Amino acid sequence: MSDTLIAATYSVRGPIEQASDRIEALRLEQTVELPRQALPTDFDEGPILPVLLDAPRPTAAGYRFTLGFHPATAGACPLQLLNLLFGNSSLHAAIVLEEITFPPALDRVLPGPAFGIEGLRKLTGVRRRPLTCTALKPMGLDPRALATVAGRLAAGGIDLIKDDHGLADQAFCPFEERIRRCLDAVEQAGAGGERQPLYVPNLLASGARLDDQVELCRHLGIRAVMVEPMLLGPGNLVEWARQGEMAVIAHPSLAGGRGLAPSALLGRIFRAFGADAVIFPHHGGRFAWSASTCRAIADRLRDVDRQRRTSLPVPAGGIDLERVGEVIEFYGKDVMLLIGGSLRVPPEQLEERCRRLVDGVAAAGEEP
Amino acid sequence: MSDTLIAATYSVRGPIEQASDRIEALRLEQTVELPRQALPTDFDEGPILPVLLDAPRPTAAGYRFTLGFHPATAGACPLQLLNLLFGNSSLHAAIVLEEITFPPALDRVLPGPAFGIEGLRKLTGVRRRPLTCTALKPMGLDPRALATVAGRLAAGGIDLIKDDHGLADQAFCPFEERIRRCLDAVEQAGAGGERQPLYVPNLLASGARLDDQVELCRHLGIRAVMVEPMLLGPGNLVEWARQGEMAVIAHPSLAGGRGLAPSALLGRIFRAFGADAVIFPHHGGRFAWSASTCRAIADRLRDVDRQRRTSLPVPAGGIDLERVGEVIEFYGKDVMLLIGGSLRVPPEQLEERCRRLVDGVAAAGEEP
Repeated sequence: MSDTLIAATYSVRGPIEQASDRIEALRLEQTVELPRQALPTDFDEGPILPVLLDAPRPTAAGYRFTLGFHPATAGACPLQLLNLLFGNSSLHAAIVLEEITFPPALDRVLPGPAFGIEGLRKLTGVRRRPLTCTALKPMGLDPRALATVAGRLAAGGIDLIKDDHGLADQAFCPFEERIRRCLDAVEQAGAGGERQPLYVPNLLASGARLDDQVELCRHLGIRAVMVEPMLLGPGNLVEWARQGEMAVIAHPSLAGGRGLAPSALLGRIFRAFGADAVIFPHHGGRFAWSASTCRAIADRLRDVDRQRRTSLPVPAGGIDLERVGEVIEFYGKDVMLLIGGSLRVPPEQLEERCRRLVDGVAAAGEEP
Repeated sequence: MSDTLIAATYSVRGPIEQASDRIEALRLEQTVELPRQALPTDFDEGPILPVLLDAPRPTAAGYRFTLGFHPATAGACPLQLLNLLFGNSSLHAAIVLEEITFPPALDRVLPGPAFGIEGLRKLTGVRRRPLTCTALKPMGLDPRALATVAGRLAAGGIDLIKDDHGLADQAFCPFEERIRRCLDAVEQAGAGGERQPLYVPNLLASGARLDDQVELCRHLGIRAVMVEPMLLGPGNLVEWARQGEMAVIAHPSLAGGRGLAPSALLGRIFRAFGADAVIFPHHGGRFAWSASTCRAIADRLRDVDRQRRTSLPVPAGGIDLERVGEVIEFYGKDVMLLIGGSLRVPPEQLEERCRRLVDGVAAAGEEP
């Protein structure tokens, strides 16, 4: 689309007759944030204001167009990139940021995943088939009880056992004790096998507490962590991807896509910022996201995006065990199925239901 | 409403006949994230699942109800509080988090502003009248040119001269040089006067770079900074409020339209997390927020919220100088008017237009 500019496609609800005014307003709003008459007389807008790459075309509810932003206006700061593309415009209910394409100039600023799909396959020893994941829950169990669940899930053959995103550092389940016990349980369950199930702690804190959580994980040899980028701040993804010590799985808490299209935020941004895997609600579960939204996210996590590694799509949000085949057919093999509740009902059939999931993905892996 | 629980009021679009199913789903989704049948048989849901404090009542488009969450499920983590109240529900387009009330148990976790309205009045020496603020722009000027603008605005009598939120650390305007030059210019303009205009840098970075920015501001004796909490991560607000060294002005970049009502996010959450002042678009400017939304934000920044200090409302987003009287009438005296473009058109009348703003707020301060 452009070799030098950051291309951002917006859709706007409203009459296309107003498009040129709206586009002009957006060009100013997202950069100089001044009316044109207030710019200094010798101001050179060329290197600062975005240019129109694609003229407005009608959509069902309005129109769509593409602006090209100058990488220099983002500087070397991924957060300023978000500011630039959608900071103030997020306050306009009629505008949606639909798609982003990054030029080579941002390769260093937005490194993408340190591990990516291939890295996660190496970490888990799963070479061809879809990966499996489940969440440790419910909140309310103490570390010992959670560790017991973790051990059973790992023994059941699940590849990644991650904390539920609501497991923080509550008094009834302190972070450090939880991490130590669950890690032990998962490692013991995997000992001697050819695959190494991974325990994936949820990091959720700020300031020195977050540093402490990261440090403990490093110290214990944790290989992958989960984070909620929209809570911790998306800049942390970039920091961790640069360090490249632990794989990072991004969770969509508070990432609800009104304004930022899910495919732009979870697909383009989370991947470019360094998420090795991205969790999102699969259609037909507890959340009303459409099949085409899920398809668009997965496509953007796995397409050719310059030199960036691909990120693993992790459909979730109430996938029923009965749907394993369908989900694999939908995403193909480079996917991680995150199944929570459906493994746990009824509770006494946990091992049997894990087996069904494991068999389902194994069958898919043997396809030509 | 409750002395012990975190009260969260939600509105849902849809038939009220489905309310009880929806409420039950939300109670599970936001805590245990499992179907009820998957909970261990001896699981005590009492201390974990939220309780219904206010039964659903019809609204224009659906219904509204209030849940009471147990503080222990948030632990001592403000980010987990956001997870708990709205993390996954942000992915449901039909649900809006409308209002939050914090119980005494969260007083230590959510300290509120370290300075607040009274602290900002002390820092600026402005005792009774509304405060004034403007933004340094446009992006594209180098530090020397921005410092010249800053000096003229400070000489014009503006109380706070803040960086535009798009000023990051771009090559054409490096952070350190900008901060040093603009601070000098503002301090020189205020030297010897009875009021001290404040220069307010925009912090925008992650990891070690953010630490460096904070450290430079400390070192230079900066008294107030601006941040975009939804970019940096809202947890940083809490950290800085706890440290209490610099006042923090919160900017709403990327804070729009995700199912979190502006009055809940900018009013309740930003204040409880420690913002001393909160910027938001005043109605009738460039953004389509309503008068009642602005009223609701300002009310929540300034109401009695346990022992928390009040936060200063900062209406912005294209306020015309002609509207100064109207804006003050709308908010009263405990407000900071953030006027950008309207001070700058035409550019040669900057001093005269600053004077009109200063006179406008001075007149308001002498009212009984």
